[in-house]
Amino acid sequence: MTAATPRRRGRPSRTDSADAPAARDRILDAAREEFSERGYDKTSVRGIAKAAGVDSALVHHYFGTKEQVFEAAVEVAFSPVLVVREEVVEGPLDGVGERMTRAIFGLWENPATRVPLLAIVRSAVNNEAAAAVFRRLVSSQLLYRIARKLDLPDPELRAELAAAQLVGTAMLRYVIKVEPLASADPEQIIARLAPVVQAHLTQP
Amino acid sequence: MTAATPRRRGRPSRTDSADAPAARDRILDAAREEFSERGYDKTSVRGIAKAAGVDSALVHHYFGTKEQVFEAAVEVAFSPVLVVREEVVEGPLDGVGERMTRAIFGLWENPATRVPLLAIVRSAVNNEAAAAVFRRLVSSQLLYRIARKLDLPDPELRAELAAAQLVGTAMLRYVIKVEPLASADPEQIIARLAPVVQAHLTQP
Repeated sequence: MTAATPRRRGRPSRTDSADAPAARDRILDAAREEFSERGYDKTSVRGIAKAAGVDSALVHHYFGTKEQVFEAAVEVAFSPVLVVREEVVEGPLDGVGERMTRAIFGLWENPATRVPLLAIVRSAVNNEAAAAVFRRLVSSQLLYRIARKLDLPDPELRAELAAAQLVGTAMLRYVIKVEPLASADPEQIIARLAPVVQAHLTQP
Repeated sequence: MTAATPRRRGRPSRTDSADAPAARDRILDAAREEFSERGYDKTSVRGIAKAAGVDSALVHHYFGTKEQVFEAAVEVAFSPVLVVREEVVEGPLDGVGERMTRAIFGLWENPATRVPLLAIVRSAVNNEAAAAVFRRLVSSQLLYRIARKLDLPDPELRAELAAAQLVGTAMLRYVIKVEPLASADPEQIIARLAPVVQAHLTQP
């Protein structure tokens, strides 16, 4: 966990361009933490700036409005989905439920992607801008593509009910923390959810 | 929708005991609306009082703290669950998934119970007191009782994963409003979810 190059401590000068990528990353990290802990409405650009140790103006300079900071901060939750896309979609159909469930739990179990996912869920229930990001996350997902590969009725509805099983499990496990689900072994959960996702997507 | 006895308009006198049940009900209605639209954190006793047309002191007099107002306001979401309890649990096991799914969708499709349910979901993601109410709602539910009737491993985990399918569907349909799920016929959704709930609870 040691940095390859030593970083200067304290608030960076706004004109110091060598610090710019570091400041930008610190702002994104701070934004993810703030949004995931407080939700969209209670997070302020000023609070993000303070947590990142920079001036509010620098946050606006890099990202624009609060909504744009939010989108940039949660974007990291999307990119791993895009990476796994081909292997999840293109493999044999009879293992697609397990591959999909495993990919989603991989995102939730990894702190780097769990934090922005929490930010989306915590924010989306109370804020329309964040809800729009959530809808995009659901519909940009692989689930539609998988469901459409089959010649079955209602592929979008099937994809959304499969997503609902995964979203609801994440909600009860990571947000509401219902026991024993919150402490259960991920493999045990995956074993129970994979057939459900499979059935939603592929059962006539 | 006409009241049996005419109600006086405007702010009631705090000493007028004949108005007390009406004021109490107005406060509960206002509290449900406020909590369901804004979530717990952004709702204030003052805002509830204003919406109900009463003084904040009267809200405190009847219910105590904001947390106690919240519990009283959402309690109406629990009572229908208790009413259907016996018929859902005691019927034949091979129809329990459908009876359970139908009972839960009945609550969400009925505005009188949907509003407090929305209040719980919107509040629970950002507030620990509301999350505790949500956990109680999940665990006081019939699902545990049903799962425990069978001699299968992990009854609580099974019950929670069944609840996750229902909670996630409600989240995407009523809160995030993902289409086509948000506009789909409830019967179509029930037909797809009943076998999933059934399998979580009863499949070895």
